[in-house]
Amino acid sequence: MAASCRLKPLSRVAVSGGTHGNEMSGVYLAKHWLRDPMELQPDSFAVTPFLGNPCAIEKCVRYVGRDLNRTFTTEFLSSAEAEDEPYEVVRARKINQTYGPKGSAQAFDFMFDLHNTTANMGACLIVDSEESLLPMHMCHYIQTHYTRSPCPIYLYKLPGEETYSINSVAKAGLALELGPQPQRVVRADLFAQMRALMACALDFIELFNKGTVFPAFEIEAYKITGLMDYPCYPDGEISAMVHPKLQDKDFLPLNPGDPIFQTFSGEEILYKGNTTIYPAFINEAAYYEKKVAFAKMEKHTFSIPGLQRE
Amino acid sequence: MAASCRLKPLSRVAVSGGTHGNEMSGVYLAKHWLRDPMELQPDSFAVTPFLGNPCAIEKCVRYVGRDLNRTFTTEFLSSAEAEDEPYEVVRARKINQTYGPKGSAQAFDFMFDLHNTTANMGACLIVDSEESLLPMHMCHYIQTHYTRSPCPIYLYKLPGEETYSINSVAKAGLALELGPQPQRVVRADLFAQMRALMACALDFIELFNKGTVFPAFEIEAYKITGLMDYPCYPDGEISAMVHPKLQDKDFLPLNPGDPIFQTFSGEEILYKGNTTIYPAFINEAAYYEKKVAFAKMEKHTFSIPGLQRE
Repeated sequence: MAASCRLKPLSRVAVSGGTHGNEMSGVYLAKHWLRDPMELQPDSFAVTPFLGNPCAIEKCVRYVGRDLNRTFTTEFLSSAEAEDEPYEVVRARKINQTYGPKGSAQAFDFMFDLHNTTANMGACLIVDSEESLLPMHMCHYIQTHYTRSPCPIYLYKLPGEETYSINSVAKAGLALELGPQPQRVVRADLFAQMRALMACALDFIELFNKGTVFPAFEIEAYKITGLMDYPCYPDGEISAMVHPKLQDKDFLPLNPGDPIFQTFSGEEILYKGNTTIYPAFINEAAYYEKKVAFAKMEKHTFSIPGLQRE
Repeated sequence: MAASCRLKPLSRVAVSGGTHGNEMSGVYLAKHWLRDPMELQPDSFAVTPFLGNPCAIEKCVRYVGRDLNRTFTTEFLSSAEAEDEPYEVVRARKINQTYGPKGSAQAFDFMFDLHNTTANMGACLIVDSEESLLPMHMCHYIQTHYTRSPCPIYLYKLPGEETYSINSVAKAGLALELGPQPQRVVRADLFAQMRALMACALDFIELFNKGTVFPAFEIEAYKITGLMDYPCYPDGEISAMVHPKLQDKDFLPLNPGDPIFQTFSGEEILYKGNTTIYPAFINEAAYYEKKVAFAKMEKHTFSIPGLQRE
């Protein structure tokens, strides 16, 4: 990688709240901004808040037909309209028209996406990969300036995988994943944290637009390598819970031989991998339907080149 | 009240898990017992576990048509069958046939009902009123013998109100309300706690059946006096969150002038009552649809007469 890169200033930034309709920090923050847009008036760019999945928000569920945040792939965005297609496919095409099209010069410069998890992930910053230069600089800026809690970086894209998330329709993006918070609940502490993180991220864009030079740095981040399934009975129902020693231990080292599950009868199940991993999304409510108990992450240090505007 | 009462021994005891289909400690505990009934074999009585709302459990939602646990009133139990009635009305009649009929001599002697809340209520024991002698003795026994966490007693029936809960079909009942736990999540620690509380409660029944004399005692309990609504915008949407200083403070004193809400713009709203109360179900996910922020409770000390079997 080059020692420093120049990118165009950002002029159009979008923020989605309620991409999942039962993750309430983002739902209520986006609704608040839509009622009172005063908070979102930076000097050098425009910010557009919107409700990601209005139908799911109305019903206070994650999604109505299929997970909107897995629907921004070529398969769905370029498919012909069909009568029986899920609501979220229609909604994804509409979002792609408004804030994209994905991969085009007309796309918005940046999109934030506001999420909650029932896992103890703190103020987690989700980026597609360490190669996304501007988001990685934004994460570094947030980690330096937002010091009330750790802000671990979660790199979600598996090698060779197509991006599928809502913010992939913009030229760059960042998702905030705040937890723990139950689905359908808004906690004032997490709401304040999300608002403060957004203010900090917008400050970064303002500084970038105004010509601040951001030097190269090294940064620690967690990169996904795969998913851990729940043990199941032959009929497909889960037969064990996340072990109490693993519960709430997101981003902490899990070593071979450490307990990961406890069956309903009380037996321990140990981690059989060969290397230390750093689990995340431990006991996330929305992942039971996929039988996913946690995401397996590796911890890496990345060298990120410097950045300034063209 | 008499200084001591004699009651018949209990022969048939039922336990409902999943009366609300997304409260997972009870769902998984009842399912576990149905797979492996060995844990539920006391000497002197029979225990029958069952799934309260199988259709809601299947969909992992609180209810499908209406709240099952508000459907055990004369209005619903004695209504004629109708084609368009909610699933839960049909289910309530069926439960009443199997474990009741409510108020009759054929009814089961006791019913446990297993719940979770997103509120920080610990191992809460819910009884209709302090006049329910056997349940109050059971609570006292649990408080004395289950010492891993406080077990506050919540008396739910307002004066003059008809009982409406699932365990009201049996001659007596107790609901366990464990929290905090998100909807759709099972935490191993709360699962273990629920199982231990049930074992302790069944021990009490065994002792009672075998003739143990339980002397009179005084006991502290929280009695509901009303509900506190969320502030709302004119369009009916909530305009404020539970205040961070009130969040997680279930069963602690709330004094006149203490903050109870924080608006999304950041203003504080103070408690305007005249007396100290002890809020419970603070920020319970399922109560947003009713606009209920918490239940207002008074703390009382009750004198409970002694108990032994006939």
